[in-house]
Amino acid sequence: MKRKDRLVVVAKELDYDEKIVIINILDAEKLEIKSGDKILVSNAKNKSLKEIFTVATTKDMVEEGTLLIPTKYAERLGLSSGDEVKISQTHKPESIELIKKKIAGEKLNRAEMKTIVNEIVSGLLGRTEIMGFVMAQKYVGMDMDEIEALTRAIAESGERIEFGRPAYDKHSIGGVPGNKVSLLIVPIIASSGLLIPKTSSRAITSPSGTADTMEVLADVNLSIEEFMEVANKVGGALIWGGALNLAPADDIIINAEKTLRIDPEPQMLASIMAKKLAAGINTMVLDIPIGKETKMETVEEAINFARLVIELGNRVGVRVQAGITYGEQPVGHNVGPALEAKEALEALIEPGKAPASLVEKSCSLAGLLLEMGGKAPVGMGHKLAKDILFSGKAYQKMKEIIEAQGGDPNIKPEDIPIGQYKYEVYAPVDGFVTKVSNKAINQLARAAGAPKEKGAGIILHVKRGRKVVAGQKILEIYAERSIKLQDAIRVLESHPPVIIEGMLLKTVPERTIYTFPMEGYSQGSSSE
Amino acid sequence: MKRKDRLVVVAKELDYDEKIVIINILDAEKLEIKSGDKILVSNAKNKSLKEIFTVATTKDMVEEGTLLIPTKYAERLGLSSGDEVKISQTHKPESIELIKKKIAGEKLNRAEMKTIVNEIVSGLLGRTEIMGFVMAQKYVGMDMDEIEALTRAIAESGERIEFGRPAYDKHSIGGVPGNKVSLLIVPIIASSGLLIPKTSSRAITSPSGTADTMEVLADVNLSIEEFMEVANKVGGALIWGGALNLAPADDIIINAEKTLRIDPEPQMLASIMAKKLAAGINTMVLDIPIGKETKMETVEEAINFARLVIELGNRVGVRVQAGITYGEQPVGHNVGPALEAKEALEALIEPGKAPASLVEKSCSLAGLLLEMGGKAPVGMGHKLAKDILFSGKAYQKMKEIIEAQGGDPNIKPEDIPIGQYKYEVYAPVDGFVTKVSNKAINQLARAAGAPKEKGAGIILHVKRGRKVVAGQKILEIYAERSIKLQDAIRVLESHPPVIIEGMLLKTVPERTIYTFPMEGYSQGSSSE
Repeated sequence: MKRKDRLVVVAKELDYDEKIVIINILDAEKLEIKSGDKILVSNAKNKSLKEIFTVATTKDMVEEGTLLIPTKYAERLGLSSGDEVKISQTHKPESIELIKKKIAGEKLNRAEMKTIVNEIVSGLLGRTEIMGFVMAQKYVGMDMDEIEALTRAIAESGERIEFGRPAYDKHSIGGVPGNKVSLLIVPIIASSGLLIPKTSSRAITSPSGTADTMEVLADVNLSIEEFMEVANKVGGALIWGGALNLAPADDIIINAEKTLRIDPEPQMLASIMAKKLAAGINTMVLDIPIGKETKMETVEEAINFARLVIELGNRVGVRVQAGITYGEQPVGHNVGPALEAKEALEALIEPGKAPASLVEKSCSLAGLLLEMGGKAPVGMGHKLAKDILFSGKAYQKMKEIIEAQGGDPNIKPEDIPIGQYKYEVYAPVDGFVTKVSNKAINQLARAAGAPKEKGAGIILHVKRGRKVVAGQKILEIYAERSIKLQDAIRVLESHPPVIIEGMLLKTVPERTIYTFPMEGYSQGSSSE
Repeated sequence: MKRKDRLVVVAKELDYDEKIVIINILDAEKLEIKSGDKILVSNAKNKSLKEIFTVATTKDMVEEGTLLIPTKYAERLGLSSGDEVKISQTHKPESIELIKKKIAGEKLNRAEMKTIVNEIVSGLLGRTEIMGFVMAQKYVGMDMDEIEALTRAIAESGERIEFGRPAYDKHSIGGVPGNKVSLLIVPIIASSGLLIPKTSSRAITSPSGTADTMEVLADVNLSIEEFMEVANKVGGALIWGGALNLAPADDIIINAEKTLRIDPEPQMLASIMAKKLAAGINTMVLDIPIGKETKMETVEEAINFARLVIELGNRVGVRVQAGITYGEQPVGHNVGPALEAKEALEALIEPGKAPASLVEKSCSLAGLLLEMGGKAPVGMGHKLAKDILFSGKAYQKMKEIIEAQGGDPNIKPEDIPIGQYKYEVYAPVDGFVTKVSNKAINQLARAAGAPKEKGAGIILHVKRGRKVVAGQKILEIYAERSIKLQDAIRVLESHPPVIIEGMLLKTVPERTIYTFPMEGYSQGSSSE
């Protein structure tokens, strides 16, 4: 006889992000559950594959004895149509009382933090309650004991990588477009003999994450085994961390924070460090870009944050040095996955011709790692990094990495396809560039289709402080589709990316800030 | 030709609380929407019936051109299978930036508050974002201008009732079990000639809300038209406010707050006053029970809160007086819908035999209303209320109200069915009652099945300060089902409802605080 707590997965496809399962009302009655209850669904063949879902009941969408589950969760649980699942009751979340304790201003201990994180990962806590926890962190704050406890709990919430030898990393808190420095730093460090197994993120609000950029040159969707094999073989790797199930609690919390873009300092610290701990990193350089339109406005703020990261690193066994960098305009000239990959590859091949902002930032951060790894005396790391870059060794190493990650090691910058639709922007007046806006560049590149359309992006021909003359080309926008180029042009009108002293900031009533010579652009056609 | 933005509702039943619609992937592509997007679904025949839903897409659960919507929302939109809906895109919520402004400590103006409340009601803001707003209220606070703006916005978020003459009300901030005073106050006030159209809530965390208690005697699920008809005819009514769509934003916010039980003062103030405004109330007495295990611990706290309610009332045109009452133990003896209805009816019929706590509290609060309504000079309201109660006029009026609300006006207290399963608790030692715990009484009554099972509840035979002798009956628990009685008995072991001085507080290691003589109870059988 079939047990009432077993249901069979039906052959229906449902694309939905929330964790819902639809079951027949007769099964719900037998199981004594009702719509809105949380239940644990496990794969009957492999009970370690289990997750918590919210129940919806129906009289006629699925038959008695069956269950409908969104496709992505069925895949995650290794379930196909006809497979059996086991349904169990869930206990009441214990962390509600713990979050209330934090809200009331009390301190949480290590076991309590672990309970909260476990219940976040299991799905017992919803996004609303996670938001309550994050807001309490923001207003009540957490001390370093609590942040350490949170970090460890998040690090332990998923897979853990161990390389068995020191592993180095560079991490940026983000906020600056065009930041392709990892594509230079990783091969420089790997060339020196230090292990640098880098996991990166994809863009959330920026035009290209390091993983998006690297994906132009090689596969970045590696499994943990493949990742470790590449890193151990060539000494470095540049992959997307999202598929590795490292510190999954972090991803869930970030997802809850996303809409309101809340990211309180304790959570930000725990998030950075937990990912490193889970990825087996022992030594890290932290890039903190400062300035307007970045995450940190002042040097003081950056120093305070750096001290906290260093202290947290000390507590959990990760050595940290911080590099505070200038972040008020893009790094290098190119923004967008393909354009950034192209610029990085060019810099590896001919560093002498590369933008100083890209070479200097990469070599400064790489230099700190070389010093920490004992490859250069203190103060000499920058020089060593530059020597490695200019010797061509970093480029050779990058070719090895690209090959190990399934890309074409002989790819030339000019082989990289860029969007065929182009729009050029010219300086309307003579003057000096007083501002290049990260925000406007971000929005422009995203409107043009980045990061999803890899060929979309921006080439900036001027940077802050540069003198320009009227009619000089200051910017190019690339897109893969005409409609996206038009979207970007609309954004251009409301978000000027480059401010030139002496330029009209507004005209009345319908014209836009820029006047664009139409040469080099005709709507909907290729400029090539 | 059929327009692509029209879909037909399929004949499938789905019981689910989240606002999801399932559409075919081909329609999604035509409409340029994807899973997770928010869309506006309107009834094609009556476009004023529209709500926002989150999209789930499928290849095979619904056919092209059709849409599946949870049954309760289909009903709310007046949709049956085969009806046509119109799908439209939604704009990005504007209130994200406004909530971020509040989080950053800034003040919101009236238009901004209105935008937030409108987007909460439309469904554009999710519970996660509402939690962010509520937490910001808790930690950043709001000034009286903001609270007034929030109150007005919430009051305007749904239906508005206007009686065309002064309408009186009594409101309790809650927290005390057995609080059936509205069942005495409403007929007393209505007998005096003042209009008291009372909308009440059902229990959320208590064993019985006023609406649950009144439902034992009459129908409380009235429409606005029926409610106004009853109130205008007999001068008073006692109905459930939940079905009237008064201030729906309030219900949605409370729902988001529920799990973490967060209820910051600004939200609490706006919630109380918005419901009154929407219900057409001009004059109100506010009952603030104080003491341990209530919402306000001290008189000072209660006075501060009362001042805020009075000021807010002044601003929006509702006269308020507050009555601070003793709330450290239940009002009267009975807890649970049927038992409370019985006790209230007994008190209306024979007030001389009713518990002093019930009669005095009811007459004090009713007295304030009589004074505010000009029916008694200041200081004489209590006496007039008592005169009306003892004259039998209040009972006669209650019969009119019961009849007007479709109940049996001649119902006798002994006609009211009480749960057939009973457990009696005896004092284990001689001593004085030093505490009656609201929390334990609540949990006990709820474990026994209240408020869902109306016959479940508690009769308390002793109150605080009373002398008891060993073996004296101190408590009875009633349940409609044997299993629920056993649940309550288990709760009794961990949550002592009555503390008697001299009694052992703990025994080691397995026995419980009470020793229960087993007479009067045998498991699973009726004691009647």
